[in-house]
Amino acid sequence: MIGKKIYNLCKIIFPYNRSLMGNGNRITLNILKKYYSKLKIKEVPSGTKVFDWVIPKEWNVKEAWIKGPDNKKFADFSKNNLHLVGYSKKINKKISLKNLEKKLYYLKKQPRAIPYVTSYYKEDWGFCISYKMRKKLRHGQYTINIDSQLKKGNLTYGEILIPGKIKKEIFLSTYICHPSMANNELSGISVTIFLVKWLASQRRKFSYRIVFLPETIGSITYLKKNLKIMKKNIIAGFNVSCVGDNRSYSYLPSRQGCSIADKVALHVLKWTDKNFKKYSWLDRGSDERQYCSPKIDLPIASIMRTKYGEYPEYHTSLDNLNGVVSPKGLEGGYNVLKKAIEALENNSTPITNFYCEPYMSKRNLYPKLSKKESTKNKTKIMLDFISYSDGKNTLLDIAEKCNLPIWDLYPLVNELKNKKIIK
Amino acid sequence: MIGKKIYNLCKIIFPYNRSLMGNGNRITLNILKKYYSKLKIKEVPSGTKVFDWVIPKEWNVKEAWIKGPDNKKFADFSKNNLHLVGYSKKINKKISLKNLEKKLYYLKKQPRAIPYVTSYYKEDWGFCISYKMRKKLRHGQYTINIDSQLKKGNLTYGEILIPGKIKKEIFLSTYICHPSMANNELSGISVTIFLVKWLASQRRKFSYRIVFLPETIGSITYLKKNLKIMKKNIIAGFNVSCVGDNRSYSYLPSRQGCSIADKVALHVLKWTDKNFKKYSWLDRGSDERQYCSPKIDLPIASIMRTKYGEYPEYHTSLDNLNGVVSPKGLEGGYNVLKKAIEALENNSTPITNFYCEPYMSKRNLYPKLSKKESTKNKTKIMLDFISYSDGKNTLLDIAEKCNLPIWDLYPLVNELKNKKIIK
Amino acid sequence: MIGKKIYNLCKIIFPYNRSLMGNGNRITLNILKKYYSKLKIKEVPSGTKVFDWVIPKEWNVKEAWIKGPDNKKFADFSKNNLHLVGYSKKINKKISLKNLEKKLYYLKKQPRAIPYVTSYYKEDWGFCISYKMRKKLRHGQYTINIDSQLKKGNLTYGEILIPGKIKKEIFLSTYICHPSMANNELSGISVTIFLVKWLASQRRKFSYRIVFLPETIGSITYLKKNLKIMKKNIIAGFNVSCVGDNRSYSYLPSRQGCSIADKVALHVLKWTDKNFKKYSWLDRGSDERQYCSPKIDLPIASIMRTKYGEYPEYHTSLDNLNGVVSPKGLEGGYNVLKKAIEALENNSTPITNFYCEPYMSKRNLYPKLSKKESTKNKTKIMLDFISYSDGKNTLLDIAEKCNLPIWDLYPLVNELKNKKIIK
Repeated sequence: MIGKKIYNLCKIIFPYNRSLMGNGNRITLNILKKYYSKLKIKEVPSGTKVFDWVIPKEWNVKEAWIKGPDNKKFADFSKNNLHLVGYSKKINKKISLKNLEKKLYYLKKQPRAIPYVTSYYKEDWGFCISYKMRKKLRHGQYTINIDSQLKKGNLTYGEILIPGKIKKEIFLSTYICHPSMANNELSGISVTIFLVKWLASQRRKFSYRIVFLPETIGSITYLKKNLKIMKKNIIAGFNVSCVGDNRSYSYLPSRQGCSIADKVALHVLKWTDKNFKKYSWLDRGSDERQYCSPKIDLPIASIMRTKYGEYPEYHTSLDNLNGVVSPKGLEGGYNVLKKAIEALENNSTPITNFYCEPYMSKRNLYPKLSKKESTKNKTKIMLDFISYSDGKNTLLDIAEKCNLPIWDLYPLVNELKNKKIIK
Repeated sequence: MIGKKIYNLCKIIFPYNRSLMGNGNRITLNILKKYYSKLKIKEVPSGTKVFDWVIPKEWNVKEAWIKGPDNKKFADFSKNNLHLVGYSKKINKKISLKNLEKKLYYLKKQPRAIPYVTSYYKEDWGFCISYKMRKKLRHGQYTINIDSQLKKGNLTYGEILIPGKIKKEIFLSTYICHPSMANNELSGISVTIFLVKWLASQRRKFSYRIVFLPETIGSITYLKKNLKIMKKNIIAGFNVSCVGDNRSYSYLPSRQGCSIADKVALHVLKWTDKNFKKYSWLDRGSDERQYCSPKIDLPIASIMRTKYGEYPEYHTSLDNLNGVVSPKGLEGGYNVLKKAIEALENNSTPITNFYCEPYMSKRNLYPKLSKKESTKNKTKIMLDFISYSDGKNTLLDIAEKCNLPIWDLYPLVNELKNKKIIK
Repeated sequence: MIGKKIYNLCKIIFPYNRSLMGNGNRITLNILKKYYSKLKIKEVPSGTKVFDWVIPKEWNVKEAWIKGPDNKKFADFSKNNLHLVGYSKKINKKISLKNLEKKLYYLKKQPRAIPYVTSYYKEDWGFCISYKMRKKLRHGQYTINIDSQLKKGNLTYGEILIPGKIKKEIFLSTYICHPSMANNELSGISVTIFLVKWLASQRRKFSYRIVFLPETIGSITYLKKNLKIMKKNIIAGFNVSCVGDNRSYSYLPSRQGCSIADKVALHVLKWTDKNFKKYSWLDRGSDERQYCSPKIDLPIASIMRTKYGEYPEYHTSLDNLNGVVSPKGLEGGYNVLKKAIEALENNSTPITNFYCEPYMSKRNLYPKLSKKESTKNKTKIMLDFISYSDGKNTLLDIAEKCNLPIWDLYPLVNELKNKKIIK
């Protein structure tokens, strides 16, 4: 079961302290490289201007904790990297509870959850703890210790290019900037690398471009470096995020909402789970914000399980591998993306070789006797298919018109091609 | 009442053994010729290649029956030509009930019905009986006698060309291959020949092409011979089938579903029976399969009463002139097709002669006094009509916009033309 | 409160006997000129041919009444100008009740209402009384006195041209032919002149053309004289009618129904009153009949409060300033038209200056901390807005896509322009 394999990878990379930039990202990418050796790890230095943005400093943490009046450590980064506000600067001092309070983040409504907080673009520091922990704190002096480093370094990302028969590309993007959380966003990374392994083993029409990068600044950086070729070659793509839980399936459109990526996503999801959730562009929140922005306008949709922001464990320590993400959930995420890619690969525009209906009987494709009770179902679908094979309808169009999942048509296309009925 | 006349014709042609090809078809066409002498009967020889098909042998039957162990005849072709499986080959032998059983067709759910079965493209034989009859059969030896002939001959079809003011054509097609069944398909033949009589007596803008042919192989043959001129001239057409019962009205679209034939059919049916049934291209089953196939793509829709396959008596001996088809049903079928043709003939694109509304009062087209209670209805419709007479809307468009049946507009168009308000 | 000011103007002009042509119209226009001195009063002589029409005679009334057998006057024009059928000719004679009856108009269902009746294009005479009054009339001789004059004169209309930055125009039209009735049509006149005062005080992109004219013959005359420039310059317009009661908001489309005037009207009304009533072109009844007629086809929609013909007091003496029209009603009518004009003025097509999302943080447009609880609403709307600023969407398109009233976007556009994020 592929879901179990993906789940195991999630477990391996779960503990590392990923952020915008830093060693956690490098470690994660090096682990992924073991799964697909042609993954290239690339770096872009701090200070590089990327469109309206500048690549910030790199962040690395040795240790971070608070020691209470009772001399006990808590909010210990070594236990859970969510305890430390992302991009917290180095600090070591004593502080009263009252002053510490301003730097503490917790969720009263989720007393066991450690929230996920970052301060990427303003130098600051802070700790995240459970509300349960917070309630235990008593007045007195607290020792704060954050042994972190913010320095010029590099933005690190992974890139995989898999050539196909033609140069036109399908694009997958997922993000490596989230620390120890499972659905958002170990699921995306793990499902994507397994999709890569599958893709590399297949005959492909399209070429593939797959990236693992920090959200926002990573996709902006990548676009800055590759926009021209991406605009030229990418015919469809998916932002891979939140593909690991087993509660629902979701779709978020590209900005225009009518690209082939959108059509395929809607089709696959409809035939996978008729109750799949359909979001709007206004609900966006990941790298489609960049990929689909004006002047960029790539055809990138999102196929998800339960969307970021839409489940209670989102952006807390509760988004873990025990309650939220499961092998089954990951397998579902993997499968819908696989089916979407297969649909793109198979989406030909068939055209019949004949005027009028072909003579099915001589090819053993027609029931011999016109009996009312005969099951004519396969013949019926075949004739429906041929009737739409006019060189204008794609396979996806035909599947929609016949009210069938596109994958039901693949063997039929093969048979009709073999029998020289369509080309 | 026209319905009664059409019904009488149905009665006359009911008993003949029509099939793909054979003398029953010739007799039927010769009877039709008495109703419209300019009908041309044409023949195309067996073995002729027509697109992917080959015209098969011709089939004629002298007699056919089974004799039981009790020496009594049953399944006698001379009593009902449905008893014999269509295109059964010659055979004369004794056979056990067990072996006969493989060649018997009956319907357990309709114990009094003789089913309609054919085996056109595989040489075979068989008998169709009622389940009531089947239950009476006892073990023993049965004598099978089929004195039929399958030999090279001709596919026979009827063609009527009625010239109009312009060369653009309206096309009607109906099929003559069904033996003794009434709605499917004596109704189509009979209604069509009466439409021809009416058409020939009218002033016509369009030319008309009307064909009576065996389903599938007949339409394919006709297309093979006439495709070029048909593609050039036909602007709309209807496949005429199942127009004889009085239970419902039905529409089946052309493949693209948006031709003027479709628009007119939907309009006429909506204003004839608001509960008319709307089928999809996936429900097709008659010669539209050929006329609308890719590369052919003629604008042919179907206007029906109760559609083939959608009534319990379909393709059995119960589809008769006593329970299913009636003068009233035929008259309804005739009228909707007549109205559709009239709509096509009248579907001009009017354009007002004036800037702003015309001064209706000086033409006695406006109520003299602005009294609230005045019935301004006719004036209102006229002004609505003129307001849409911009040289872009057809009469059909205007009828749809005014929410009126198009035939309500015919006198109005005349009046407005006479008064030189529109051209 | 602007509504009160508009209401006061209604009171001032209420009593004058407006009609197609005559001194009542001149007086009304001269009063309006006091509110906006650049209003030009123009006259076109009787007998002038305007498209299919001819400008009729001018009508003025000195006095008109009936005297009963009891020698008491009633139906006295000096008490209510609705008592006299519009364009009644001069007459003075004795007449029996039976003969008088043919010339009396009243409403049984509204026994206190005097109906509004005219006979513009056929010389005739008549009186309108309440049914309550009618029931009091006894047999006997009645003296009829109508001291009116129908003679060659002039059609009078008012025209205001307000220049803007560009020559493209927004057009407003309202009508001055209705005597003492409030919603239909003092409201239109009064609201329009106050819109003019506001417009003249604003910075304007567009030029404005505003006309006050008798319905139908007035708009036809105006089109005859100005069609070329109107076709060239008018990009949107509104027919201003029935904008004074406080019961509902209504929209009536232009003939094509998809002009920018229509889009703006629908948008403003939707965000003003989600239950606003949407009429169709078939429900039209004012000067849009001319402005949108074929060959003219100007983009003129109607924004109304309760539409003519749709309220019980319509075209009777009950359509007054006490029960129907109110300051609040007029203010609502004024405001929706003002908002529609503002929407047209502001309807730019923004385009972002950046590839990818701009870096909002450095412009203090982004919450510094990624805390779940942060209110990110303004940032969210700004980023939504920028994401649609692709040089293809107008502000109105973006408002629709963001599901916000367009006026919520005006300050945002300013801020984004000031920060050089969009142009």
